[in-house]
Amino acid sequence: MQLDNAPLPSIGILGGTGALGGGLAFRWAEAGLPVTIGSRNEQRAAEAAARISTGIKGPHSLNSAGLNECAANADVVVIAVPWDAHQETLTQIRDAARGKIVIDVVNPLAFDKSGAYAPSVPEGSAAQQAQALLPDSHVVAAFHHVSAVLLADHTAETVDTDVMVLGDDLESTKTVQELVRLIPGMRGIFAGKLRTAAAVEGLTANLIAVNRRYRTHAGIGLTNVEEAAHATA
Amino acid sequence: MQLDNAPLPSIGILGGTGALGGGLAFRWAEAGLPVTIGSRNEQRAAEAAARISTGIKGPHSLNSAGLNECAANADVVVIAVPWDAHQETLTQIRDAARGKIVIDVVNPLAFDKSGAYAPSVPEGSAAQQAQALLPDSHVVAAFHHVSAVLLADHTAETVDTDVMVLGDDLESTKTVQELVRLIPGMRGIFAGKLRTAAAVEGLTANLIAVNRRYRTHAGIGLTNVEEAAHATA
Repeated sequence: MQLDNAPLPSIGILGGTGALGGGLAFRWAEAGLPVTIGSRNEQRAAEAAARISTGIKGPHSLNSAGLNECAANADVVVIAVPWDAHQETLTQIRDAARGKIVIDVVNPLAFDKSGAYAPSVPEGSAAQQAQALLPDSHVVAAFHHVSAVLLADHTAETVDTDVMVLGDDLESTKTVQELVRLIPGMRGIFAGKLRTAAAVEGLTANLIAVNRRYRTHAGIGLTNVEEAAHATA
Repeated sequence: MQLDNAPLPSIGILGGTGALGGGLAFRWAEAGLPVTIGSRNEQRAAEAAARISTGIKGPHSLNSAGLNECAANADVVVIAVPWDAHQETLTQIRDAARGKIVIDVVNPLAFDKSGAYAPSVPEGSAAQQAQALLPDSHVVAAFHHVSAVLLADHTAETVDTDVMVLGDDLESTKTVQELVRLIPGMRGIFAGKLRTAAAVEGLTANLIAVNRRYRTHAGIGLTNVEEAAHATA
């Protein structure tokens, strides 16, 4: 898939009714991609699509569907469901996602009185669980540390943050890096194979600790990595 | 320990003959702290101290010792040994480090043809292993993502990077944040308890993947975290 000289890929966001999924739907629909919000609850998916649509300037394509239809009709499938629905959702879309890029943005997190922590995942990480459940798809992990608040903020024209992109299939990670770049201010940086995804997912618990201590919405920046290197990588 | 109005603490760096440990010795000795480099091999420790000393402008205190003497005579003990010497070194200094702050900078890493990855650690992370082996010390995890090259570079007047500081004892993490701040350009940001250290340690494998792809020495910056919040935290 080459974004530069081909039709823009259509995006199906499973869990697009949530904060991060909805924010991605908003940004990509505004960038001109055909986006569909998928949910177990089709009524909620339709409501989210209508609500997000009102915030987008200019013509755009933003629709809604059930989980399976959403995955089946999209070129690229985004998994943005809560962690406790991760396994079930992926099991359900195995056939619909065959041969496609699946972007997993899920952070396995648990909470107690001391704050957030990364629970043990048998496969090692959410991304590795996704690849195990979708052996015929190209799983790419990304967007773990993006502030959903900033992403959904219609007054924020750019979302200045670096997105770590992980995956085992080189072409798929490059496509996702290009999808990241369609959101103004964002850089997609390749940051390893899926077997190293646990640290990237788990770091979200550390960012939550930072946010709690400093009362902020902290993000991650990668210093000393050149855009130029990005463009030619 | 209050750095502002008390004598500066003395630092003992176990593994100060290595790149990161040596870089910290250089920066802290130059900042005026009494520093001792500790190693199993006292001859190598003495050579490292002499070599680093020649790069420091002005009066300073930089000595060398064996592992146990180094830990016993320091106010703050830094663990900068290779991962495969981690468990043995900590077991050896248990009595010497009693009641002290122990800064663990070790990244458990393994390598194969596909690059670096985080091996499984029974205790969860190097930092948790250290706390288990040193139940009477205050373990603080920090400095995982600092470029040893930049740290040791005498021509680099500042090391502009954020250091995630993790620990279970609040006062100890504050002291380490102040020690971080003694190195020009560095900020020490509290980023969670020891149970969340695995992600911070493991992220080093992702930075190695970034460095490999982009041919750089990438570092981590925390965006949207204010110095002011840092100063008052």
